[in-house]
Amino acid sequence: MENACIWNWNYWLRGVRMKEIKVGLIGFGTVGQGLAEVLFMQQERMPKRTGMRIELAAIADKSAKALPERFAHIPLVQNGQDVINNPDIDIVVELIGGIEPAKSFMLAAIAAGKHVVTANKALLAQEGRDIFAAAAAKGVCVGFEASVGGGIPVIKALREGLVANRILSISGIMNGTANYILSRMTDEGIPFAEVLAEAQRLGFAEADPSYDVEGIDTAHKLAILMSMAYGMHITHREVNTEGISRIEPLDIELAREFGYRIKLLAISRNHGDHVEARVHPTMVPQDHLLASISGAYNAIHFHGDCAGNILLYGLGAGKVPTGSAVAADVVDIARDIACGSIGRVPPLSYLSDQFTPRRITPMDELYGPYYFRFTVLDQPGVLASIAGILSEQDISIESVIQKGRKESGGAVPLVIVTHAAQESSVERALARINTLEAVTAPAVKIRIFEDE
Amino acid sequence: MENACIWNWNYWLRGVRMKEIKVGLIGFGTVGQGLAEVLFMQQERMPKRTGMRIELAAIADKSAKALPERFAHIPLVQNGQDVINNPDIDIVVELIGGIEPAKSFMLAAIAAGKHVVTANKALLAQEGRDIFAAAAAKGVCVGFEASVGGGIPVIKALREGLVANRILSISGIMNGTANYILSRMTDEGIPFAEVLAEAQRLGFAEADPSYDVEGIDTAHKLAILMSMAYGMHITHREVNTEGISRIEPLDIELAREFGYRIKLLAISRNHGDHVEARVHPTMVPQDHLLASISGAYNAIHFHGDCAGNILLYGLGAGKVPTGSAVAADVVDIARDIACGSIGRVPPLSYLSDQFTPRRITPMDELYGPYYFRFTVLDQPGVLASIAGILSEQDISIESVIQKGRKESGGAVPLVIVTHAAQESSVERALARINTLEAVTAPAVKIRIFEDE
Repeated sequence: MENACIWNWNYWLRGVRMKEIKVGLIGFGTVGQGLAEVLFMQQERMPKRTGMRIELAAIADKSAKALPERFAHIPLVQNGQDVINNPDIDIVVELIGGIEPAKSFMLAAIAAGKHVVTANKALLAQEGRDIFAAAAAKGVCVGFEASVGGGIPVIKALREGLVANRILSISGIMNGTANYILSRMTDEGIPFAEVLAEAQRLGFAEADPSYDVEGIDTAHKLAILMSMAYGMHITHREVNTEGISRIEPLDIELAREFGYRIKLLAISRNHGDHVEARVHPTMVPQDHLLASISGAYNAIHFHGDCAGNILLYGLGAGKVPTGSAVAADVVDIARDIACGSIGRVPPLSYLSDQFTPRRITPMDELYGPYYFRFTVLDQPGVLASIAGILSEQDISIESVIQKGRKESGGAVPLVIVTHAAQESSVERALARINTLEAVTAPAVKIRIFEDE
Repeated sequence: MENACIWNWNYWLRGVRMKEIKVGLIGFGTVGQGLAEVLFMQQERMPKRTGMRIELAAIADKSAKALPERFAHIPLVQNGQDVINNPDIDIVVELIGGIEPAKSFMLAAIAAGKHVVTANKALLAQEGRDIFAAAAAKGVCVGFEASVGGGIPVIKALREGLVANRILSISGIMNGTANYILSRMTDEGIPFAEVLAEAQRLGFAEADPSYDVEGIDTAHKLAILMSMAYGMHITHREVNTEGISRIEPLDIELAREFGYRIKLLAISRNHGDHVEARVHPTMVPQDHLLASISGAYNAIHFHGDCAGNILLYGLGAGKVPTGSAVAADVVDIARDIACGSIGRVPPLSYLSDQFTPRRITPMDELYGPYYFRFTVLDQPGVLASIAGILSEQDISIESVIQKGRKESGGAVPLVIVTHAAQESSVERALARINTLEAVTAPAVKIRIFEDE
């Protein structure tokens, strides 16, 4: 048989020395250690599945002094460049995170003709265009399964499993820390700051939590998924991003009364010539699967024109789960090396010259239902004047709750859920309502999730 | 670049004629029409993603007299063998279902050196060993993404996305008809027969519903997933299978009181030397994701030693969703053809000579919690004697509900939920309890789902 891969197996089955793929790792932090763990745990299973041995042949870490005993046989160097320069290395895995020196290492590895794998969503969301262009020009692979959804094989599902689909929408919970905090706030009615502080104590949240709680990390991931789903160039800067730090227990409690849970969602709807790109706290109907994703789990939902609704659920972070995704990329590339099929699947799912620019839908043009919480003096006529302003802007009210409970200065919360309305009209209405004398605090606005 | 695939693109990018892959379809029923629809819907997108044109070049259907107008240009023949004999065809897609003549067509196509794709779970679960052996010997691909989970890319996720995992357990809702019937029974309290009759009227259920409601179809799918997850040969005959036809609204209602929903689950836990293989109605805790999968949707859950819990959700059946999965296989194979990388990934995820036999855990050896419903005369001492028999068999009671409500002959339901117990002890206990004078009907036993 003139067939590279089956030949390669028979080769091995005939007892000839098995093909070995050598992996060089730059960055021995949490995920780097996770990859080493995974390759160690799977070292006997891998040859049975791939006909190859996957060997972690070099580790670079600028601070690590020594490796755990079971990895002690692996050469440890300080400088990533030493791994890149190592002629034995087939695949360079970058797991240091951040933009620099990560980008320089990636580009140097590509220039050296190495295939590269990364979990670095910030780097791909910001500098991905340079990296993918360099890799395509050099004819090497770029693996990034671990950059979105941790251990969930979401990149492969979107690129290959859903290849026969026009993606109509993407939505999901893509940051476990933010979801953990919202879940605790929801289940226990604790304020944001308190849960965050505890999460930091427990190590679930970074010392600087802004990437997680302000939605930036989620925006990185949405940008990566959008570029693959639509075949367009987009950075996280083009994603309209709003975090959860201003969510109050009161809104979570009122959301429940209306049948919603508040989640930090990434949302992109495909309107053809323009596509939505937004990350913000969202009211999700209690019976929707995304509402029941709690704790540190992630869930990513695609709506394909052929497959329909697809949801992928799993651990969005963590040492070994993320290592599992990195290892899957390494195996994929190892198979392409063994079969001489590098570039078999375009990394971003569309051929690089087939990317088409699309306008990002301005938030003003969004159209959907809203939750408003007004803080108003408990006096006659307030609801009438607010309702009047809303109707002037063609915003029709679905339901209202006025709470008797007094807050500071005799003010009470007035909650209104609307039917679908245009965000620009909503902004105009809220601006006017905030000027009313009986309104003692700026209105709270939370968008309500609409499933296709 | 001496690189097959990137070369292949550049080739196309330089305006040289694009590679064309010709697909021959045997069976123009629901899924066959779905595949044609999908290839039609995606015909402009495919070249942008693959650098190839995927052409449906021949259709065989023994009863179809003519094709819909947009497919009228495709030659229609009566006999599948004519498609197999067509030298232009690269990939033969078998979508007639059933064992014969499907198996003969598959083997003939393989013998003719064609790559094959099928959605036929019954065929693979029963005759897969012959088919995969023939394909490996001939060096052709076998695609079967559509055989499990309809449009959900579950086969690829298990084989490639989770390649760096030992699968510790598989569980899931894999039959939309059974799940639809149970959902209706749960939401509306309607008896099984009534919902089934309506489902048949609406076309959601076959005239002969036994494959769906008796769990046979689910067993086919579990056998396919188990063979891939564990690298073992198993047919659906080795899967312990029990359907939903005997589930009564009363048990659904009582399950709710205990915080459970009844679902038809496929369950396999990996004990190393032995593996569980079972399909039966199961009490799923209300807060578990599997409990909230309703209607015709499927959800498949894997627990990997590295990735942790992964759940894949989507439409488990339907013309176009299933067509989307078939098309994904076709594209995968087309890429292997273009790259000369046939056999790049072993179809069953382990190399064929690496399959290891494993004992199927006898049901007697199962260990877990149980729900029992006894029908007893409302008289003193009954609970005492039942509890006594249970404790003799080391079955400890977690909770009890005795319903005042009388049934025929003054009998009342007595429900007991147990802690984890051995199924053999349970069977012994129930046999004895059924002989008690105060027990007027055989005990109902439903296993309770335990998540890892």
